[in-house]
Amino acid sequence: MRMGVLGTGMVGRTIASKLVALGHEVTMGSRTADNEAARAWAAEAGAGASHGTFADAAQGVELVFNCTAGSGSLEALRAAGAENLAGKTLIDVANPLDFSHGMPPSLLVSGTDSLGEQIQREFQDAKVVKALNTMNCEVMVDPARVPGEHDVFISGNDHGAKAQVRELLESFGWPAGSVIDLGDITTARGSEGHLLLWLRLWGVLGTGDFNIKVVS
Amino acid sequence: MRMGVLGTGMVGRTIASKLVALGHEVTMGSRTADNEAARAWAAEAGAGASHGTFADAAQGVELVFNCTAGSGSLEALRAAGAENLAGKTLIDVANPLDFSHGMPPSLLVSGTDSLGEQIQREFQDAKVVKALNTMNCEVMVDPARVPGEHDVFISGNDHGAKAQVRELLESFGWPAGSVIDLGDITTARGSEGHLLLWLRLWGVLGTGDFNIKVVS
Repeated sequence: MRMGVLGTGMVGRTIASKLVALGHEVTMGSRTADNEAARAWAAEAGAGASHGTFADAAQGVELVFNCTAGSGSLEALRAAGAENLAGKTLIDVANPLDFSHGMPPSLLVSGTDSLGEQIQREFQDAKVVKALNTMNCEVMVDPARVPGEHDVFISGNDHGAKAQVRELLESFGWPAGSVIDLGDITTARGSEGHLLLWLRLWGVLGTGDFNIKVVS
Repeated sequence: MRMGVLGTGMVGRTIASKLVALGHEVTMGSRTADNEAARAWAAEAGAGASHGTFADAAQGVELVFNCTAGSGSLEALRAAGAENLAGKTLIDVANPLDFSHGMPPSLLVSGTDSLGEQIQREFQDAKVVKALNTMNCEVMVDPARVPGEHDVFISGNDHGAKAQVRELLESFGWPAGSVIDLGDITTARGSEGHLLLWLRLWGVLGTGDFNIKVVS
């Protein structure tokens, strides 16, 4: 499948590489057409990998990942173009992290709103699915890094898009039973809020190779 | 041990009953000396159970549980009296839930502050330990309701107080390895933030008999 990955940071590169390894054609998008990180990634990732602007990464693809920093996601998506996102599954991996109050970061929105909802409100024709935002990027694409059972959460309004994301997550190595559908896009408040605990656990555990399992 | 439980709601009654069952002398405190729920609880809980005002429940005890609604916790603690809380371990079980925006609730403070910190800042001589606020009250006092391994988080500035809380949690049935010390009281932002995910999981699972296990 042709896919676009917005963002050239560690999360974007890790997800884009996994998608290429799975046989997808991936365009990594950034603010400028000549982003050095995107160029280096495409050269290294090899066949199926290309790079360009945010709009280049959203045009002509079937599915788009938002892996930009949460504080810049809306602007990046505007650059990608609402018309290029319309009708497509938009997997929002970003968290609205606020580094202005020091470390660990807090959240730019929390409780009464979420980045996932902000994106869905502004890009009404995109099918936004919040997913994978509750863990380190290495764990996102290789859940077996963390031993035993643990879970990934999805939130979104479109059932077809969520089914597509489930399938993609399974191709990443997530067992079907580990994908927990929290509900519509407002439930992104839950997975984004959990980041506050994730950040503290990261501090205690000293590694990003962890996750949570919901036990009931 | 003599203990005070502030709050007459389900959380307060459940914890107070467990403490009495474990052989502690427990005074349940409320705004007024003649609170009907507190009176009924004390009559039913039997030997070792008494009730009174918030101040009655904090005076002459060794340890105090804050089980009041988060939106009213500071006021309840003021009524209990800073002088009665000084030098004591104050286990803060409350969450700063904000029901003014509808259901599920959001948080009155989040990310850059927490109820646990607000309490510690105002009652500087109390040894505040945030604990048990990431689960239903039945699970707090009977972790075996949820099968398998799952965790409870503690946050606080005083190591002695946290050791005391660990011991108390073990007496509730929590295995030593399931108590995760997140760090100082600012880490209460983590466990309180997780509530946003807990609320959504509650909606999906349709039961409060669940918890999370940190897997690494």
